[in-house]
Amino acid sequence: MPDKHKVVIIGGGFGGLNAAQALKAAPVEVTLIDKRNFHLFQPLLYQIATGSLSPGEISAPLRSVLRNQKNCSVLLGEVVDIDPAAKVVVLKDGARIPYDSLIMATGSQSSYFGNDAWREWAPSLKTIEDAIAIRHKILFAFEAAERVHNQPEERREWLTFVIVGAGATGAELAGTLGEIANETLKHDFRYIRPEEAQIFLVDGSSRILPAYSEQLSRKAEKSLLKLGVRFRPNLRVTGVDADGVTFTTTGEGGQPQQGHIRAKTVIWAAGVTASAATSMLAKITGAETAKGGAIKVTPGLTIPNYPNIYVVGDQAWYLDSKGKPLPGVAQVAMQEGTYAAKSIVRKVRNEEPLPPFKYFDKGSLAVIGRGRAIAHVFGVDLSGFPAWLIWLFIHLMYIVEFQSRILVFIQWGFLYLTHSRGARLITGRAADEIPDGSHTMKAAMSGD
Amino acid sequence: MPDKHKVVIIGGGFGGLNAAQALKAAPVEVTLIDKRNFHLFQPLLYQIATGSLSPGEISAPLRSVLRNQKNCSVLLGEVVDIDPAAKVVVLKDGARIPYDSLIMATGSQSSYFGNDAWREWAPSLKTIEDAIAIRHKILFAFEAAERVHNQPEERREWLTFVIVGAGATGAELAGTLGEIANETLKHDFRYIRPEEAQIFLVDGSSRILPAYSEQLSRKAEKSLLKLGVRFRPNLRVTGVDADGVTFTTTGEGGQPQQGHIRAKTVIWAAGVTASAATSMLAKITGAETAKGGAIKVTPGLTIPNYPNIYVVGDQAWYLDSKGKPLPGVAQVAMQEGTYAAKSIVRKVRNEEPLPPFKYFDKGSLAVIGRGRAIAHVFGVDLSGFPAWLIWLFIHLMYIVEFQSRILVFIQWGFLYLTHSRGARLITGRAADEIPDGSHTMKAAMSGD
Repeated sequence: MPDKHKVVIIGGGFGGLNAAQALKAAPVEVTLIDKRNFHLFQPLLYQIATGSLSPGEISAPLRSVLRNQKNCSVLLGEVVDIDPAAKVVVLKDGARIPYDSLIMATGSQSSYFGNDAWREWAPSLKTIEDAIAIRHKILFAFEAAERVHNQPEERREWLTFVIVGAGATGAELAGTLGEIANETLKHDFRYIRPEEAQIFLVDGSSRILPAYSEQLSRKAEKSLLKLGVRFRPNLRVTGVDADGVTFTTTGEGGQPQQGHIRAKTVIWAAGVTASAATSMLAKITGAETAKGGAIKVTPGLTIPNYPNIYVVGDQAWYLDSKGKPLPGVAQVAMQEGTYAAKSIVRKVRNEEPLPPFKYFDKGSLAVIGRGRAIAHVFGVDLSGFPAWLIWLFIHLMYIVEFQSRILVFIQWGFLYLTHSRGARLITGRAADEIPDGSHTMKAAMSGD
Repeated sequence: MPDKHKVVIIGGGFGGLNAAQALKAAPVEVTLIDKRNFHLFQPLLYQIATGSLSPGEISAPLRSVLRNQKNCSVLLGEVVDIDPAAKVVVLKDGARIPYDSLIMATGSQSSYFGNDAWREWAPSLKTIEDAIAIRHKILFAFEAAERVHNQPEERREWLTFVIVGAGATGAELAGTLGEIANETLKHDFRYIRPEEAQIFLVDGSSRILPAYSEQLSRKAEKSLLKLGVRFRPNLRVTGVDADGVTFTTTGEGGQPQQGHIRAKTVIWAAGVTASAATSMLAKITGAETAKGGAIKVTPGLTIPNYPNIYVVGDQAWYLDSKGKPLPGVAQVAMQEGTYAAKSIVRKVRNEEPLPPFKYFDKGSLAVIGRGRAIAHVFGVDLSGFPAWLIWLFIHLMYIVEFQSRILVFIQWGFLYLTHSRGARLITGRAADEIPDGSHTMKAAMSGD
């Protein structure tokens, strides 16, 4: 048996998984490398953070997704080096994996714009562990507020939530948090009313969900307000600590003005940057990167001068026909992954190369709480319940595993009908180990 | 409003939750204290450890279970002291909670019989975090075996699993592990056959599930063997480390004989001991404890000389009509919790005291893999599929929250039909951070 063309794919997200699947019938040998053993349906991660879904329900083991694809093996490991001259990928444990074609699909990570110290007080939402930690923080805040109920100031701090970043993740988190406070937890406490919660959605730009039309932005803002979420535009965060968020904004007369929101719970949904693997690859290949660290790829999605190294998804910086960089969303990653796979097949078969990659935008959607969403689909703006139905349908269809799909569907059905949330577990940390709460609680309880 | 009789319940497991619910209509003020914010359906914890279910599916937030019970509040906290003279419970953060009646329902924890160093190599199954850690260990072992596939000895070590303790938890874990190896993962790997896995169930006694009749034990052993699980009786574990399990057993001629099983994965299901809170309470009250640390309670389930302190569930040592101590199972805890609640109501109402507690044994059940179980119900022995159906029905009925019940039911339906497992996530730890694996893998991969 002659040696088959070896394709190594790094990352089992939307880009990598689609590339692997698009190579199913190809005369190649595929190795998919990922740090984790599962594909994560990232657009629903905020539902884990808010206790609506359990991790297993939006994840699918990579091995089982690729089970019937005999030309593909899955490797659990972390890439620490790439040698384009030797055409080898090096894993953390020293293993060297040879490739003929490489597809980089390692995605992005959250960015604090150089203020990594803020991470301690304002977790972001990229991994399952992040989501569980945020869930812990949110649910614990209500518990803590209950315990300090007779100290109005402390109670208010525990019941104040700030979400930094009003893109899709921020808006969806804020909306769900609004539902939790106003509906899910409504009858669960004896001394506080969860509806007292103040939820601030803050952003440097002038409107929420800036990827959508102004009209849709306004509708989304209105929907969020109904859920108790107040949007604060034009607000630049300058500090995050145990007490809350410090910011500058434009005061009356256009003068910059300092401000502060006292809050025990801050969540970061503001920015992303390239993964460590991308930065490494850019350095090794001398590839040019854009702001945020994504690699500027050729029209064939490869790195200039490295025609056998493809970059897809959040890591790739590519301009659409209007000269705007493609957004870091699942759809783009999936189409790019498929394109890279097809391009490799053409090479292996000595066929003429593919025309430049072209993104086909099927539209975008963001959900704002129960039964409400905004959508821009095939050039048409939609909002409210119809948009939510489309969102529901599309997301369910895309979830990789059949079993998960049905479960999520039923879970959502229940949520919709009952306002309850089944996955409201505070795990991973002892109940009273959250910093800065204990002395407060002690005082409150002994004075009770 | 005159001060109501204050009932403090420590622990939101089966005993504590049932006590709280039985006090629903009573003229008392109930405070349920737990370290966690959820009730856990512990009998199904092994299904989380084996990737069949997600944590949210067998847990219910205590607040939402008790939402409509207006005389009950839930407090998240850890009890560090009890003062029976002042009738006060002290929490870790210093809060002092007064009581008129106290119900202790803090359950048991796993015991390594004085060899706590074994815990590092042989995790046990008591909490959600334990279950996730065991899931990680099991799934990672197959991944590691795939990577060292061309080193037969290393591969065998990764594919050898030892479960210590052949009671219900051990037998159920072993059966599910057998299914994972022989069915779930069957087509998932390229270089190993998961069916190669060797699963040993070891115990100091002469048969598995000794709480059942000998005939049922034998049937269960046979069912397990079909799933590739080998039972090793009369085997006393004398050491657990990174390489496996050392034991003594009775050799030919009745001489004690040393032995060793080389295995990378050992799971501890062998014993339980009283919780820290129980030991503390026994010390404070001078109560007599039994082997294992449970408190010897009066026929009214109280501590001798402390008629207002009840002990229920795994912590209570109580003899049945045949002079045998009641087992540490959910049913006992639930009945005891309800009894304690009723006893308190009688006192508050100045009615005559309840007759001594009497356990009504509805029967016991253990499941051995897909569609097989053994049961002793109302004096009748059952096995195979009928027993499994009863098991399925009873467990579903008991799961506290309606939503969870339906989801688990569907999840099981799928499992039964498809052999797939939706919650096969390795989370919480980087992929290649398991000790002792990396150097092996490195060698294996570079020699590939």
